[in-house]
Amino acid sequence: MIEIDDPADPRLDDFRDLSTADRRPDRPGGRGLVIAEGVVVVERLLASPYPVRALLGVRRRVEALGDGGRDLPAPAYVTSAEVMAEVVGFHLNRGVLAAADRAPRADLADLVASSRRLAVLEGVGDHENLGSLFRNAAALGIDGVVLGPGCSDPLYRRSVRVSMGHVLRVPFASMPDLPAGLELLRANGFTTAALTPRADAVGLADAGLRGRRVAVLLGSEGPGLTDLAIGAADLAVRIPMAGGVDSLNVATAAAIAFYAIA
Amino acid sequence: MIEIDDPADPRLDDFRDLSTADRRPDRPGGRGLVIAEGVVVVERLLASPYPVRALLGVRRRVEALGDGGRDLPAPAYVTSAEVMAEVVGFHLNRGVLAAADRAPRADLADLVASSRRLAVLEGVGDHENLGSLFRNAAALGIDGVVLGPGCSDPLYRRSVRVSMGHVLRVPFASMPDLPAGLELLRANGFTTAALTPRADAVGLADAGLRGRRVAVLLGSEGPGLTDLAIGAADLAVRIPMAGGVDSLNVATAAAIAFYAIA
Repeated sequence: MIEIDDPADPRLDDFRDLSTADRRPDRPGGRGLVIAEGVVVVERLLASPYPVRALLGVRRRVEALGDGGRDLPAPAYVTSAEVMAEVVGFHLNRGVLAAADRAPRADLADLVASSRRLAVLEGVGDHENLGSLFRNAAALGIDGVVLGPGCSDPLYRRSVRVSMGHVLRVPFASMPDLPAGLELLRANGFTTAALTPRADAVGLADAGLRGRRVAVLLGSEGPGLTDLAIGAADLAVRIPMAGGVDSLNVATAAAIAFYAIA
Repeated sequence: MIEIDDPADPRLDDFRDLSTADRRPDRPGGRGLVIAEGVVVVERLLASPYPVRALLGVRRRVEALGDGGRDLPAPAYVTSAEVMAEVVGFHLNRGVLAAADRAPRADLADLVASSRRLAVLEGVGDHENLGSLFRNAAALGIDGVVLGPGCSDPLYRRSVRVSMGHVLRVPFASMPDLPAGLELLRANGFTTAALTPRADAVGLADAGLRGRRVAVLLGSEGPGLTDLAIGAADLAVRIPMAGGVDSLNVATAAAIAFYAIA
């Protein structure tokens, strides 16, 4: 633990102007860092494969980590809440942060080969929905998430936070061409089930998915899956819903589907 | 439709300083109004039992309501986005608002007698979680929500918005003494099932709840249900979860339980 009082200290640069620090390096201001906020999420980052660069926090929160703040894998800068707020650019009330480098995404073929249950996303662009979906995937025994076209970056700070750090634990891979990519799943013995509110889809409980190797396809909250994705899946499944109600939030619909195939 | 250009016009008072207008009348600044934001939610308010007092919006959004903005049950004030922002106190990008008076909550005995599936909440104080829970209840066929001790007010603007207006459709009643109140449910033939992560609870799918008259008891996200509430329920049920994961968000857990008993 290293005490720092000067907000301009260059050792704190990883945490400067946090609202852009997590952007991909190809975006304005983006440094591509993975930022974890709060004791629980920082601990998940420490346990993850992402190489931790530094920690920053008030003493009480840093001491709540691991073995009383000892044996951390990177320097832990200790300061006041006021200096933290000045460095990051706004007031944070979680008291501790960690910054890590990105790591390569999982290889799609490896992820598919080693999983029994997968979520395959198309067009899930909302960072909070994406974070919630990872949290639900972690809780409900999904082995990995496959990001099809139009998905946002799960390592944005807001997704990391909303996921409670589970984007750092649940492996994810990219599938740039979704309909074609489903062949890889099929070749590995997966049944691909597209979740959609369409009336002609099979009720989730009647689809016989429980206990099988299943990939659930999920679309964004508004438009849902494309017809192309639904058509390419082995079957279309739906959650029975009351009339006159908009579809569920995508992370909630995903949670029900994950529960139903577990 | 009445054009108004002056943000100080007293006919717009229902929409003035919206950040406090929805507070209960016994709270500072509280007028106890029900505020709906956006076309979808305003339409749910128009279809609800809450007496609409006035609407405020930009012309395009007001004309998206009902029959081209005609036949509205209250005056619709049409103005610019800038005047709206000045009246409400911040920038709104939904373009239309409605204000209504509160109506008495449903009578608990009536709600129980007329329902087959209920959610009973204890200590759900977070307005967003409460709103999401109502949205999930509406989508998944729950007939009503019973608010036990420690629950927040579902008619706060944020709950109304997050619920997509479903707090205005799904009836709710108060149960000030939760363990004692469960007797009323039992007397009406309900099985009361407490949702808890406890290891000795029965798996949700194995509890034989489907098709029965069921009340699901749900606690707040952090502490969950009190031991008193769990002990007073007919059985304790759990969602099977992966190790090392925090419990699910309460609205998500509720959605899974609602799906499982449908």
